[in-house]
Amino acid sequence: MSVDYQSLAVKGVQALSPYQPGKPIEELARELGLNPSEIIKLASNENPLGPSDKALSAARNALDEMCLYPDGNGFDLKQALARRFGVEMSQITLGNGSNDVLEVIARCFVDSDSEVVFSQYAFAVYPLVTQAIGARGVAVPAKDWGHDLDAMADAVTERTKLVFVANPNNPTGTVHTADAIEAFLDRIPEQVLVVLDEAYCEYLVGDEYPDGIRLLDKYPNLIVCRTFSKAWGLAALRVGYSISSPAIADILNRVRQPFNVDTVALAAATAVLEDEAYLQKSREVNEAGLQQLAEGFDRMGLSYIPSAGNFIAVEVGEPAAGIYQALLAHGVIVRPVAGYGMPRHLRVSVGLPQENERFLDALAEALASAGLGA
Amino acid sequence: MSVDYQSLAVKGVQALSPYQPGKPIEELARELGLNPSEIIKLASNENPLGPSDKALSAARNALDEMCLYPDGNGFDLKQALARRFGVEMSQITLGNGSNDVLEVIARCFVDSDSEVVFSQYAFAVYPLVTQAIGARGVAVPAKDWGHDLDAMADAVTERTKLVFVANPNNPTGTVHTADAIEAFLDRIPEQVLVVLDEAYCEYLVGDEYPDGIRLLDKYPNLIVCRTFSKAWGLAALRVGYSISSPAIADILNRVRQPFNVDTVALAAATAVLEDEAYLQKSREVNEAGLQQLAEGFDRMGLSYIPSAGNFIAVEVGEPAAGIYQALLAHGVIVRPVAGYGMPRHLRVSVGLPQENERFLDALAEALASAGLGA
Repeated sequence: MSVDYQSLAVKGVQALSPYQPGKPIEELARELGLNPSEIIKLASNENPLGPSDKALSAARNALDEMCLYPDGNGFDLKQALARRFGVEMSQITLGNGSNDVLEVIARCFVDSDSEVVFSQYAFAVYPLVTQAIGARGVAVPAKDWGHDLDAMADAVTERTKLVFVANPNNPTGTVHTADAIEAFLDRIPEQVLVVLDEAYCEYLVGDEYPDGIRLLDKYPNLIVCRTFSKAWGLAALRVGYSISSPAIADILNRVRQPFNVDTVALAAATAVLEDEAYLQKSREVNEAGLQQLAEGFDRMGLSYIPSAGNFIAVEVGEPAAGIYQALLAHGVIVRPVAGYGMPRHLRVSVGLPQENERFLDALAEALASAGLGA
Repeated sequence: MSVDYQSLAVKGVQALSPYQPGKPIEELARELGLNPSEIIKLASNENPLGPSDKALSAARNALDEMCLYPDGNGFDLKQALARRFGVEMSQITLGNGSNDVLEVIARCFVDSDSEVVFSQYAFAVYPLVTQAIGARGVAVPAKDWGHDLDAMADAVTERTKLVFVANPNNPTGTVHTADAIEAFLDRIPEQVLVVLDEAYCEYLVGDEYPDGIRLLDKYPNLIVCRTFSKAWGLAALRVGYSISSPAIADILNRVRQPFNVDTVALAAATAVLEDEAYLQKSREVNEAGLQQLAEGFDRMGLSYIPSAGNFIAVEVGEPAAGIYQALLAHGVIVRPVAGYGMPRHLRVSVGLPQENERFLDALAEALASAGLGA
């Protein structure tokens, strides 16, 4: 062919490197010739509990409707969310995972002349959606691995359309208090939208952390994003949502694809909201797992970033990539974060107690083999 | 609030009217106080057969993985598609329905300075994705309700980045032969991408129609889009795909969301490709249903557009909206197409024989009540 089709892509897209997901179990099994059941994956911040029975049952029933398009308005799920959070259905935008919501927000309000502010070490999707639009991403240097909220407010210019704040943040697990978030929001001009990404908020323990939804009345430029992929255990089905003013939600709903959340996902998400016991168990397993991992790292003399999420970033030293590979050979998948500018760290998701133990054992062996062990 | 947030949206988005899906059964049931089982929906070109057993079984099994992210690369499904069509996996881009693929193509190759060519009366998503980018959509007047391919080729300018061709077309059901499509492609400059949307191709009867995949070698600027939502019966799950050169697929895969197709959808689509009997049954039911509907329209003296899809556009006269409402009162949902510039038509999807009959009876009554009957 005489035409270079890649050169025909729009400006931002040509330079785009796609998001690197955690390595799937099946893929490692193919590569190592292992049985998938011998592999544990602590790489994608998934809920280790397995499905909620209520979600599973609702999803099974929904399969009878396989031939019919989903309810594009997501009536039942929006109604359930509105009741749970005391908001109007018109404030809700559903997405194919919160990734979809984050992208739709950017596409609605950001053009190629805009700037988008986010933190160093923040979720990879923020720079990706910014770049795909051809906008300028402003990555503000982190402070103690977390968002430097003052510096982020300072980075807002007349071109800034959007600021992404992850609280807690992935992949570092850092979190800000309600006071800090409000002080930040007070500094942001009201024509600049702030996305408060609370994908991990269900894991927060303590009253000092913000509930973004409670801040919407005070800050009309705020959009709160959440997901069913973490504490609610529905990562496979792709359901996220934002809650904002109705005016902003109206815009977002014009741009999202009309059937962006599928029938099974809608049914499972609606049902799981009734399963408080599952959410509680998710929190308990996570709190215990974070402690188990931290104690293991302490024993090995490894530094780690204290985490408010369902994962923890541990400093294994250079080359973390080598330790990552050694763990793979042990059938343990974790997440390298060199792409986040953290080449000395690995991010490990909290698993069940026996999974955390197997990871810690494999890590000790990998470090010993590399001459890096305690 | 003192800021008008809608005015902050990017240019194309502000004027966007969202896609109007077919009215969901549950919504009509709520409005009329009916039991959903009393309502038939022939509004969204869904497969009336109900799910393939193979797809259903695979989907059920996949629910066990509810807590884990999907395989972002869709390995199994791409492998199955590559085998079926004799293409490389690197030529395939998976989407959350073909809607997603169509949107991703536009976002990759179209910017606000571009023009996008499509036909009058063509699928609503083409102008929507064009407008969301702020590009100029060029709707070429139709000929006998179908694409005027010569006029579309004439409409290509130096700014044209993309041409959408639906074959068969929705909502008119018109179709072009392989010769006509090739003659059209011969006229399109190779730096202009052509999307051949074959969402309904599985229903085509006869050798004279093109198989877009066979044209890829000759036309490197071609992207063929297909879906599992129609003849394959997976509308609820959202799976579409494109097949193109690897270079184009590489670009598309950078922009699509990393987990745009969910685990259940991937499993069901992979399994249904093995269910040739289901596909064959889909075709047979459709062919018989098209004939049943056409005969019914003939009896009533109604004009209709001969259709190669799983739906048929029938001219009920002004006001079609009134007949649509009257059908709703009978518990029959069809699709008004005034939004497509066809205010005298209704589009009815092919149902099972008894559904088609119930629709025809309700239509006769509605026309009689409106004084429009034969």
